[in-house]
Amino acid sequence: MPELKSKLVSRGPLDPQEAEWKTLVKTTYLDPNGIQRTWESAERLTRPASSAVDGVGVLTILHKSTGPELLLQKQYRPPINQMVVEVPAGMVDAGETVEECAVRELKEETGYVGVAEKTSPIMYNDPGFSNTNFNLVHVNVDMSLPQNQNPQPELEDNEFIDCFTLPLSSLYEDLKRLEREGYAIDAGVGSLAEGIEVAKRFKL
Amino acid sequence: MPELKSKLVSRGPLDPQEAEWKTLVKTTYLDPNGIQRTWESAERLTRPASSAVDGVGVLTILHKSTGPELLLQKQYRPPINQMVVEVPAGMVDAGETVEECAVRELKEETGYVGVAEKTSPIMYNDPGFSNTNFNLVHVNVDMSLPQNQNPQPELEDNEFIDCFTLPLSSLYEDLKRLEREGYAIDAGVGSLAEGIEVAKRFKL
Repeated sequence: MPELKSKLVSRGPLDPQEAEWKTLVKTTYLDPNGIQRTWESAERLTRPASSAVDGVGVLTILHKSTGPELLLQKQYRPPINQMVVEVPAGMVDAGETVEECAVRELKEETGYVGVAEKTSPIMYNDPGFSNTNFNLVHVNVDMSLPQNQNPQPELEDNEFIDCFTLPLSSLYEDLKRLEREGYAIDAGVGSLAEGIEVAKRFKL
Repeated sequence: MPELKSKLVSRGPLDPQEAEWKTLVKTTYLDPNGIQRTWESAERLTRPASSAVDGVGVLTILHKSTGPELLLQKQYRPPINQMVVEVPAGMVDAGETVEECAVRELKEETGYVGVAEKTSPIMYNDPGFSNTNFNLVHVNVDMSLPQNQNPQPELEDNEFIDCFTLPLSSLYEDLKRLEREGYAIDAGVGSLAEGIEVAKRFKL
């Protein structure tokens, strides 16, 4: 098991009066037969009015002499009390575009300076459960730039993130290995790896 | 915009006393510096004690004369009041394996009879927000079987699902088109499409 640098103390129900970041929502709707139904869901309270999404994920592929590698990080996530393998990510600030957010978060979390190249459709994490969503922004990092020679993250005092890379060619098998070692796999990274395997299998 | 077969009536805060399916959770933990912090998250109340995951996604690729196509569905999702493009999916029943769940949900939601072939790592949808998770189960559908000639879904009376397929080779562009047409894209499908594009670009 990976060393848990953080340690669970307790877990229990959250009083919604006390909640600052997340909330429960009740939706009432008419189904296609005109029958009125209700649905429970959860939301972040932090999405800026200026933004269509909560946050971004950053897809950065580093061109190494041995082949392309995906930039990843390991981060303790309290909701599951595990170290999670995920792409750099963060919440959109008010007035910020998703591309600006991606470049900023990449710099803060990994130290790399990059340029946003391409933005995915809006992705809904789990639309039967919540409205949480993000854009995956492809950020190109020019490894020949002086500022990318020895990148230094600029983490906030409640952020503890370890950066690493995995070869794209073996991403799926490496995620399976990391799961066996006790890491949790973020669905965005896992589904990306599944897509690579599908493309290989069908020679797309 | 796609025709919304369902219609939003109202949306508001959900009283946790009334909540049957979802809940808010407060986690208290020590960070790597020994500082005590708290974290808000959301959970499903429905995960069986027998299961490590809430549910499954089903990856089924149909072998058509024109090439491989991914089996997808369009479903109204109240948390975002949109029609969502997603893979067949569902919640694990008590005592059921994820593979059994995948074969059952595929039959119920699409009518296809299949065999589970491969199971992904456990995927966490949004581990900074919730503990919700799933396995992506690859289910093989033999199109030569009589029962797969004219598949008939067996939907519950609150389920309204339209099945369709998209060619794997153009999945990303087709998702972009569906987004322009007003559909929301589930992150699992979107990230799978991103993976296919990455594999093509780097000739993996």
